[in-house]
Amino acid sequence: MSAVSSGQQTRPMYYLLLLMILQLGLHTAEGVWPLPQTLISSTERFPLSPQAFYFGYGRQSAAQQGCSVLDEAFKRYFSLIFPDYTSAYGILRFSTDKPFTVEVSVDRADCDGYPDENSSERYNMSVFAGRASLKAETVWGALRGLETLSQLVYQDDFGSYFVNKTDIEDFPRFQFRGILLDTSRHYLPVQAILKTLDAMAYSKFNVFHWHIVDDPSFPYQSRTFPMLSSKGAFHPMTHIYTQSDVRRVISYARMRGIRVLPEFDSPGHTKSWGQGQPDLLTPCYKGGIPSGTFGPVNPALPSTYQFMAALFKEVSSVFPDSYIHLGGDEVDFSCWKSNPYVRAFMQKMGFGSDFTKLEAFYMEKIVNITSALNKTSIVWQDVFDYHERRSSLSVVEVWREGCYLCEVRRVVKAGLRVILASPWYLDQPGPTHNWARYYTVWPLAFKGTEEQKKLVIGGEVCMWGEYVDATNLTPRLWPRASAAAERLWSDEKQTSNVDKAFPRLQDFRCKLVRRGIQAEPLYVGHCKQEYQGV
Amino acid sequence: MSAVSSGQQTRPMYYLLLLMILQLGLHTAEGVWPLPQTLISSTERFPLSPQAFYFGYGRQSAAQQGCSVLDEAFKRYFSLIFPDYTSAYGILRFSTDKPFTVEVSVDRADCDGYPDENSSERYNMSVFAGRASLKAETVWGALRGLETLSQLVYQDDFGSYFVNKTDIEDFPRFQFRGILLDTSRHYLPVQAILKTLDAMAYSKFNVFHWHIVDDPSFPYQSRTFPMLSSKGAFHPMTHIYTQSDVRRVISYARMRGIRVLPEFDSPGHTKSWGQGQPDLLTPCYKGGIPSGTFGPVNPALPSTYQFMAALFKEVSSVFPDSYIHLGGDEVDFSCWKSNPYVRAFMQKMGFGSDFTKLEAFYMEKIVNITSALNKTSIVWQDVFDYHERRSSLSVVEVWREGCYLCEVRRVVKAGLRVILASPWYLDQPGPTHNWARYYTVWPLAFKGTEEQKKLVIGGEVCMWGEYVDATNLTPRLWPRASAAAERLWSDEKQTSNVDKAFPRLQDFRCKLVRRGIQAEPLYVGHCKQEYQGV
Repeated sequence: MSAVSSGQQTRPMYYLLLLMILQLGLHTAEGVWPLPQTLISSTERFPLSPQAFYFGYGRQSAAQQGCSVLDEAFKRYFSLIFPDYTSAYGILRFSTDKPFTVEVSVDRADCDGYPDENSSERYNMSVFAGRASLKAETVWGALRGLETLSQLVYQDDFGSYFVNKTDIEDFPRFQFRGILLDTSRHYLPVQAILKTLDAMAYSKFNVFHWHIVDDPSFPYQSRTFPMLSSKGAFHPMTHIYTQSDVRRVISYARMRGIRVLPEFDSPGHTKSWGQGQPDLLTPCYKGGIPSGTFGPVNPALPSTYQFMAALFKEVSSVFPDSYIHLGGDEVDFSCWKSNPYVRAFMQKMGFGSDFTKLEAFYMEKIVNITSALNKTSIVWQDVFDYHERRSSLSVVEVWREGCYLCEVRRVVKAGLRVILASPWYLDQPGPTHNWARYYTVWPLAFKGTEEQKKLVIGGEVCMWGEYVDATNLTPRLWPRASAAAERLWSDEKQTSNVDKAFPRLQDFRCKLVRRGIQAEPLYVGHCKQEYQGV
Repeated sequence: MSAVSSGQQTRPMYYLLLLMILQLGLHTAEGVWPLPQTLISSTERFPLSPQAFYFGYGRQSAAQQGCSVLDEAFKRYFSLIFPDYTSAYGILRFSTDKPFTVEVSVDRADCDGYPDENSSERYNMSVFAGRASLKAETVWGALRGLETLSQLVYQDDFGSYFVNKTDIEDFPRFQFRGILLDTSRHYLPVQAILKTLDAMAYSKFNVFHWHIVDDPSFPYQSRTFPMLSSKGAFHPMTHIYTQSDVRRVISYARMRGIRVLPEFDSPGHTKSWGQGQPDLLTPCYKGGIPSGTFGPVNPALPSTYQFMAALFKEVSSVFPDSYIHLGGDEVDFSCWKSNPYVRAFMQKMGFGSDFTKLEAFYMEKIVNITSALNKTSIVWQDVFDYHERRSSLSVVEVWREGCYLCEVRRVVKAGLRVILASPWYLDQPGPTHNWARYYTVWPLAFKGTEEQKKLVIGGEVCMWGEYVDATNLTPRLWPRASAAAERLWSDEKQTSNVDKAFPRLQDFRCKLVRRGIQAEPLYVGHCKQEYQGV
């Protein structure tokens, strides 16, 4: 499979046939990942020259020059389409080559806004002689089309660029296609996050779920509570995200049509919060006296909710997305149980000894705080599982192993929206966690009505940080996350065969490597250009 | 464990005590990996200044200025000791700081030779006020001492450099401490190999086992048989190692006291050889006629041995090491069995239908070819297992899983030398393949005489290439290979506790990251300087 013979003499007719197969195969449909919904391509190919290649806005386009998102994208995709061409884009060029113009038209001039849960990412594209026409409802859809175009262009063995006559209609199967990064268990330098956003755009992911704080460290530098990071980060100066860092990430993501979804997980997973916020965590008791250790956030104190209201007010203004992730997973009750004041509060509230009621009480308070800030809250499935008044919930992220589709079904039956993460925990590497495992996932393969299935708004790749930092993030994420990306974007019927997907994903992985993404190999073989950045 | 509190006020006495513990702990003994045989260090520390830090040769030293290995090492280690200091080494400096001189003395001026199986790596080092004295029998031992010195130097929170008063006597437990890289299943750019050699030196590995060719590709560009790579490489121009590339690798390795052991594995694992060398591989038969596929090297043709003699003559002159690896593993007999000419040869030779005899016959021929070229041959354990006349063998590499110490015992009982690889197959990642697995290995824990145990000359970390190329090689290799390195260098009794080793290895891993080696994290936590090169 991997050994390529070369240099052998072949007869012209055979050679021509081989060329045609290569054109039909590797260089057209196989060249786009995730697979577009409809793609018709011909063997007719057009040469492209970087000296005579132009991006422009269609006459009818609502967005015109000056539209930041698209102006910037034109520069980026020029370099991605012509990786060997070093001259800067935009400089006047003289060339005898036939010009090729990419004409982009959008219905709405949403150039200065942010992508959101309702943003259309639909686009149509036609590639003719001398011209490509790309039409989309929004600039975000146009970005997806530019990515597709960049993947349609290929080089022959002599380095010349070509694109085939192609017609594409494309839109995502799921609206929410996310990647979670965990910046608490290890600190990820901002550069590593930006690089991940680049790679996400190449696979048409559209949500960066920023699991920004957790037990081990609190790197978010809060304006309101600066002690949280100065006491709770691994280092108060070098291992934090300043307000300016956060703005940079959000802006970089916006340019790529990616939403930034912050998670401030509570009441569990908050050890690092306690360093800089006295009285926030529950003191644990042993033998009737405080043991010196602390448990989850203390739900029995009014000060807790004052703090949370102030923190989430800040977070809601810093992160523009209409969604916010409130966590709520894996709360250990033992410390609450040990604390006499918490137990007294339980009695007062009439919760008896059912600590899930206390947890539900706490989460409902937090959900209400963020609702009042006009945010749609996402919670981990644990909250749904113990919550009695589920109507206050909006979006549930299913993460536990086992029969995760059973859980999906329960959630949609309750009328809530679902994000599916269980099958895409990519932080574990190894032979049983190869790309095919993440490809052979059927998010809607449960008994339910069409309306219920529509409540599954998407899925998410989780890259937890126990064993991952900037040294190994990229090869662990790519190209395995791309397997999930195709499941979330493409038509399931056209993309259910692992054997058919394999050479396409190998090809796409080489594209990632060519673009400087340290994507690891699927199996024995080679890329035309190997990764050099060691 | 990983959350570090900071900025808290502490009383001076407590602070002093903490400082002393830190000095005794993290900054001295804990700071050297693999652990030296004897290390006595004091809390007395000496400030170092890059402006007043000098390497020099002792008066009695057999090597003096002009000794390439040490002159170059002084430059390298100056940068490693003072990573923040950008001024070039060797420029005249003016400073009011007290000078510190590292005085290196060696007994033999082996500056222009290569490290070999008998090279002593023993060194002694004493660090006093203003001076360190490093003594070794050979320049290779001096290199190991310089590595240790570089790990003894530390920075305080203000960036000042210090080294503690220290006395070290050190030597390796095993003579052969190797890492195998596989450049056939994926091509590794030369830069990736050189970077690995850098990291090997940091962990005191001394053999680079270059599994240079195999079934998928033949990247070695042979002077005698250039068609082997032009037909058998993944690409005849970009995915090959030229003679100049090979010389560069050998020279780079020599400068770091690392031997380069080439492997040309046969008769199996040779599919790529067949592309450029007609009639070398056995044609497989099906239904009485050739099926068009090929099996192992054809042992029945005299031309095979003529070819092998010419190839190994070249290889023996290109690679200076006295060892050569001949492979001999995993030979599939089915193709030999199918071929009537091979079967006729079996009859003629009186092998009956015992194909292990044919394999032994072939390997003996190859061993004899390389013996005549004054090379000591290493073979994989398979050859030992089926070989009747074992006395022709020299060194056996044990690689199979299961009771590998049973195999080690069998080999040493036969009077042969052993290299142990079984417990150190690092190409598989994942939770069950963590560093502790590679640390808790006892290579001599078998019943045998002292003489027999001496026949275990060392061990080897294997990084097979099915799922590994330059994108993920470094984080997959480091710091897990360093765990094996300590097992191979240090006193087993001092280094058998995983819990004690954990913080030391975490510290060493941060040193690797600081040196630009993309070594992955062991668990939740942080380094003072995180990896930035994304």
